[in-house]
Amino acid sequence: MADVEKYFDLVNQDQQAFIETLREVVAIPSVSGDAARRPDVVRMGEWLQARWEALGATCKRVDPGKQNLHGEILDLPPVILGQYGNDPNKKTVLVYGHYDVQPALIEDGWETDPFVLVEKEDGRLVGRGSTDDKGPVLGWLLCAETHKKAGIEMPVNLKFCFEGMEESGSEGLDEIIVEEADKWFKGTDVVCISDNYWLGKNKPCLTHGLRGVSYFHLQVEGPGADLHSGVFGGTVHEPMTDLVHLLSKLVDVNGKIQVPGIYDQVMPITDEEEETYNNLEFSHTALASDLKNDVLIHAEERDTLKHRWRFPTLSIHGVEGAFYASGDKTVIPAKVRGKFSLRTVPNMEPAKVAELVTKYLNDEFAKLGSKNKMQVIETHGGRWWYSSPKHPNFVAGAKATEKVYGVKPDLTREGGSIPVTLTFEENLNVNVLLLPMGASDDGAHSINEKIDKRNYIEGIKLLGAYLHEVANTDLSA
Amino acid sequence: MADVEKYFDLVNQDQQAFIETLREVVAIPSVSGDAARRPDVVRMGEWLQARWEALGATCKRVDPGKQNLHGEILDLPPVILGQYGNDPNKKTVLVYGHYDVQPALIEDGWETDPFVLVEKEDGRLVGRGSTDDKGPVLGWLLCAETHKKAGIEMPVNLKFCFEGMEESGSEGLDEIIVEEADKWFKGTDVVCISDNYWLGKNKPCLTHGLRGVSYFHLQVEGPGADLHSGVFGGTVHEPMTDLVHLLSKLVDVNGKIQVPGIYDQVMPITDEEEETYNNLEFSHTALASDLKNDVLIHAEERDTLKHRWRFPTLSIHGVEGAFYASGDKTVIPAKVRGKFSLRTVPNMEPAKVAELVTKYLNDEFAKLGSKNKMQVIETHGGRWWYSSPKHPNFVAGAKATEKVYGVKPDLTREGGSIPVTLTFEENLNVNVLLLPMGASDDGAHSINEKIDKRNYIEGIKLLGAYLHEVANTDLSA
Ligand SMILES: [Zn+2]
Ligand SMILES: [Zn+2]
Ligand SMILES: [Zn+2]
Ligand SMILES: [Zn+2]
Repeated sequence: MADVEKYFDLVNQDQQAFIETLREVVAIPSVSGDAARRPDVVRMGEWLQARWEALGATCKRVDPGKQNLHGEILDLPPVILGQYGNDPNKKTVLVYGHYDVQPALIEDGWETDPFVLVEKEDGRLVGRGSTDDKGPVLGWLLCAETHKKAGIEMPVNLKFCFEGMEESGSEGLDEIIVEEADKWFKGTDVVCISDNYWLGKNKPCLTHGLRGVSYFHLQVEGPGADLHSGVFGGTVHEPMTDLVHLLSKLVDVNGKIQVPGIYDQVMPITDEEEETYNNLEFSHTALASDLKNDVLIHAEERDTLKHRWRFPTLSIHGVEGAFYASGDKTVIPAKVRGKFSLRTVPNMEPAKVAELVTKYLNDEFAKLGSKNKMQVIETHGGRWWYSSPKHPNFVAGAKATEKVYGVKPDLTREGGSIPVTLTFEENLNVNVLLLPMGASDDGAHSINEKIDKRNYIEGIKLLGAYLHEVANTDLSA
Repeated sequence: MADVEKYFDLVNQDQQAFIETLREVVAIPSVSGDAARRPDVVRMGEWLQARWEALGATCKRVDPGKQNLHGEILDLPPVILGQYGNDPNKKTVLVYGHYDVQPALIEDGWETDPFVLVEKEDGRLVGRGSTDDKGPVLGWLLCAETHKKAGIEMPVNLKFCFEGMEESGSEGLDEIIVEEADKWFKGTDVVCISDNYWLGKNKPCLTHGLRGVSYFHLQVEGPGADLHSGVFGGTVHEPMTDLVHLLSKLVDVNGKIQVPGIYDQVMPITDEEEETYNNLEFSHTALASDLKNDVLIHAEERDTLKHRWRFPTLSIHGVEGAFYASGDKTVIPAKVRGKFSLRTVPNMEPAKVAELVTKYLNDEFAKLGSKNKMQVIETHGGRWWYSSPKHPNFVAGAKATEKVYGVKPDLTREGGSIPVTLTFEENLNVNVLLLPMGASDDGAHSINEKIDKRNYIEGIKLLGAYLHEVANTDLSA
């Protein structure tokens, strides 16, 4: 029996123990966004480090410094760096995950205590962090522990990087990756991140693209202070009036961006890419039902996916400085900021996006002839990430998936961003594979977050199988 | 010496005592919007009742019931009804005022403790409530007290209605006015309200018009819950996109309302009305300097005033349900409500306004072709108020002003609304005069609220002189 088959057998035998381990870590409420939970976040990081060290891994705890959370000065939770195996004849795989979780309160509508893992009859393992990202983070650990227990040699050297601030903007992480690129991370051949989800509920996938995001504040200032609309309505240029006129020029109701030139940099769709949209596990019926109301713009599933994955989009998020509470208030807000962002795709450059958006809004504002002052502020310009699914790292991922699940994985991209992907790729100059464990309906940031027992157990197999495939793959191909 | 001259003399002699009385009531922090201050509001009402009763007035304390203030159940402060004099041969004047005040904290930027009256060298009497509305409310009391002290007979029967909730929506007041119209208020010949301000800083005025206000919520609903713009941007009809398109159709940047038919009901300007705009104490230079930035739409002062007083205007106040905080958030809000209101003028009917606005927005929404749901909700439709300045009540006010200040008063209207004006007019079927005591720069709802000593002392004279003029005026003319 091949090593990987032995590994699969042992995973099957130890399923219940793996669920108990998940129960143990779900019980640590490592909510990075809650100052009161910070000691639990640290405890979770220490739990991981201790368990890896018990296995024989070398770890390095990096404390990224201080954080100001709503006025409270807190220590940032540690980034746990590790090295498990150091054989110059083996390839080296770096894995990333996060051990912090989203906030969760039973009052939010959870069926059960979010920090007590509940095994449901339908196979759901319900608990905060079960799928995001404690399940996958445990996956790497349990894979290594199982290899040791079975006496199977690890097929690669494993490096890891586990952070405790992902749900709170990964504060401090980028600096550490930059700093350690030629030190702790030296020798990394490929990176694998398991922190996203399948496109559907049944079919596994590999993810090879993420959109970037450029965030803008469109500020209009008029009078020196808020005014009473009874006294000043109709006699002064009202910033809100100017703002809604400008915001209405950005995008039409069908999502078509109105900023001239914005589509010029978008990579055309090749026949080869078009084919990847065939047979994806994705249906409008399911989507519309998740959305409660069918407000889908596009008629065809593939068009919805293209607008999620590979076309730029523009969303208006809200207005700062205006009246936002319930009820009625007759204020003329003196200074307002419309917030909007563009999701960007290959080969759009953030600097060019900001230039086009700013020029367009300046031109449109000039046409209005208002005496107010207008300013476009780019608050964030993060690039997209795109990897060819033909890269050997992806081929290894695909083979592992087929071995575990018996099907070729869907090739997906994501509409959102996972910034660390780009940070690793740019600083380590190696390929990054996104290899999700959970399903689309896991509810990562929602109430009743779960991972299906199937995804958890097969996922532990998948991560191991992937390491075996990497060992057998010519990465220079 | 005529009675009114004797009265003026005594007012001049007692100035310092009057300022001390103002100091006494400013020291009672009767903030109706602050639950913790509710006992002070009640104390202020009781202070007034006791003082009037000491003078010989008959009072009736009406407790309007309970209020839910941010979840706390409070007793509403009393409405103090009073009758001073009951001579069937005299006319009866009903006066209204409010003894509650706006919130005020030294941290807001007050130069001195807002509840300690400070007499400045430049003549300002600084303190919360000094001009709004404790100065005028004291004016009526001090007028009656001075008449008694001087042994001058009151020229009219006085009725009064002093409430303690004006700054918090006058909760409970309308019901009392309706209830008492044929009871306590029976026999009222005219009403006088001193709770607004001069147009400028030097020249007194009478006010004979107020705009109405129709308030709308424009609701757009899409998906069942907020969505992530990375995943759903560009694939669903976004409520915020629809909303900014609709809001941009309501009004142009120069304040011109775009709703068809909205100007059809507006009373045309007669030559006679046009003349009332001559020689008003009002300058754009001063206005622009108050506004800090010159964002005035109109070139001529009279056009600014017309758009404040006698043309409808439309202001957009804000959006409920969208992202409103500082910073960046990449949410697609699921359900948003744009808030806007129209100020209405003679002869616009609120029902017609709501009909026109709703039809227009429904038509525009249909043109968008969005799958979201849109709804226009009228949350308030309060009528304008307009009185001919030729009514004998106004003639009496004008003569009194000329006697005290030596100039003919400006004839003004207000852009905002003072709803109680209409309630009195409609339920008592008598004329209402708005006779302001304070000046335009008093800062009624701002920090460092003041009344000038001149306005306070001459104002006490003015209220008395007005009562004498009413006594000598044929109100049926
Ligand atoms: Zn995650
Ligand atoms: Zn997450
Ligand atoms: Zn007032
Ligand atoms: Zn007020």
